[in-house]
Amino acid sequence: MSIVAVGSIAFDTVSSPSGRVEGVLAGALTYFAIAASYFTQVRLVAVVGEDFGPEHEALFKRHRIDIRGVEHAKGKTFRWGGHYLENLNEAKTDFTELNVFENFQPRIPAVYQDSQFLFLANIHPNLQAQVRRQMNHVQLTGGDTMNYWINRTLQELSETLKLINILLINDTETKMLAHDASLPRAARKVLAMGPQVLVVKHGEYGATVFFREGTFGTHPFRAPALPIEEVKDPTGAGDSFAGGFMGYIASQEQLNREVLKRALFYGGVMGSFAVEEFGTDRLQSLTREEIDARFQIFRELTHLE
Amino acid sequence: MSIVAVGSIAFDTVSSPSGRVEGVLAGALTYFAIAASYFTQVRLVAVVGEDFGPEHEALFKRHRIDIRGVEHAKGKTFRWGGHYLENLNEAKTDFTELNVFENFQPRIPAVYQDSQFLFLANIHPNLQAQVRRQMNHVQLTGGDTMNYWINRTLQELSETLKLINILLINDTETKMLAHDASLPRAARKVLAMGPQVLVVKHGEYGATVFFREGTFGTHPFRAPALPIEEVKDPTGAGDSFAGGFMGYIASQEQLNREVLKRALFYGGVMGSFAVEEFGTDRLQSLTREEIDARFQIFRELTHLE
Repeated sequence: MSIVAVGSIAFDTVSSPSGRVEGVLAGALTYFAIAASYFTQVRLVAVVGEDFGPEHEALFKRHRIDIRGVEHAKGKTFRWGGHYLENLNEAKTDFTELNVFENFQPRIPAVYQDSQFLFLANIHPNLQAQVRRQMNHVQLTGGDTMNYWINRTLQELSETLKLINILLINDTETKMLAHDASLPRAARKVLAMGPQVLVVKHGEYGATVFFREGTFGTHPFRAPALPIEEVKDPTGAGDSFAGGFMGYIASQEQLNREVLKRALFYGGVMGSFAVEEFGTDRLQSLTREEIDARFQIFRELTHLE
Repeated sequence: MSIVAVGSIAFDTVSSPSGRVEGVLAGALTYFAIAASYFTQVRLVAVVGEDFGPEHEALFKRHRIDIRGVEHAKGKTFRWGGHYLENLNEAKTDFTELNVFENFQPRIPAVYQDSQFLFLANIHPNLQAQVRRQMNHVQLTGGDTMNYWINRTLQELSETLKLINILLINDTETKMLAHDASLPRAARKVLAMGPQVLVVKHGEYGATVFFREGTFGTHPFRAPALPIEEVKDPTGAGDSFAGGFMGYIASQEQLNREVLKRALFYGGVMGSFAVEEFGTDRLQSLTREEIDARFQIFRELTHLE
């Protein structure tokens, strides 16, 4: 199985109490892709600039990530700078340079058309919808969004939500989207907007998956996050979570409640690795054995005898 | 088995988006006692005023809670007023009238001396230590504290922590006590101050138990909280958690890692009931069958097949 993923590739400059990196290859799609690559074949749709060289291509190729859908445009790649203070839950943005990303018009290569899975990372909801409509054999679409789109393009986002099967967002976004301060109530309202499955990410406390009544049962399911001694760089934790979650699903023959539960654990596992080093450093160096060993730790962290 | 518990009994006036109650019997000790009473015999040490009448005694007696250690003093019972806005995680205090609680000098009745379990609810650390020293046959002491004591009486609190086996506090208190923004690191530092076991309560996200290396293993364990549709009154959730946690432990023959894990689940269960109605209304009306049914829901909420 393979998954097509569309979103942003960027060069990040990040500092935290643990150090600083400058201009490292990152962006939501990069975190997603590397995390998912341990489970399934990943095919990217994105845009990069002239500063994206063979050494950056090599990073994706090492993980057998298909980059035939990555467009090379004139100009510079999207760049983001941010820092974290003692409270690592909140990124402070230092600068955002959209560059070639500003006029991004995603085009799906014909060779990607046999993919059954699609992930729409956090971009304009109209672009998300365009991509979904270009894909003819997709059976399952996952998607992300953020406060920015909820506030400014709610109408467009509402249309896109009808095309998304599994929405992955955080607590604040869920409550904002539903105009409801109660998480379970807000979750129900978001599910009524389109998705059959809603994954709410709680940062250091893990994630909860809510189901629209029917196929997957009615009760929610919750997976933990690992308490990490030293979070060096929280950037990309949510995208890595999505990568583990969607990647695991794409690797399975069937989609049922038990697969979704395990996917939630794998999401937490990949998020927990991502924050241990700056950028995608820790994600890059993993083995499937390490991933499964941490899956077992997550199980022991939460399971009674 | 029985557990002696010392702390505050109060009359609360509370409002939230779901309604308002005035002068209802509450206080940390009341929540703790009713929650624990479903698991074990509870014996109270507290002080009340002349406004504490037979109808209030009756509430405790219905739960077979021993109140021979509740002193009746001249004056009024401790009164607290507070309200919650949309964000139910934070109580805004409207008034605090300590009344008879101001000069509280806990005295342990001789008939309580055969108890093997002790819980020190959130009072001045010197009073907590005094109570512990008055009890000769106690084998396990649980305790709570709060920001107020961490900021103002750190020296005294440090002495008390040496007498406490299981400390139950929240994330903020743990980080404040340890002067460390990383929860797992802060937890290790707090464990080095005395307790063998540290339970960190995460509010709507559940709780994590950390162990000092040795007896109970080294890895932490995490239990969820139930996503509650309508939280009417969050007051007392943490005290009810402590009641379920300590009550379950006191009901068991042995104390081992598995018992502590299950106790964490029972803590979450009792906390989740507490917030469903104002004051102790929901806690009062429970049956052990309802408690065990919710325990199963908590298990299903987190366990893979």
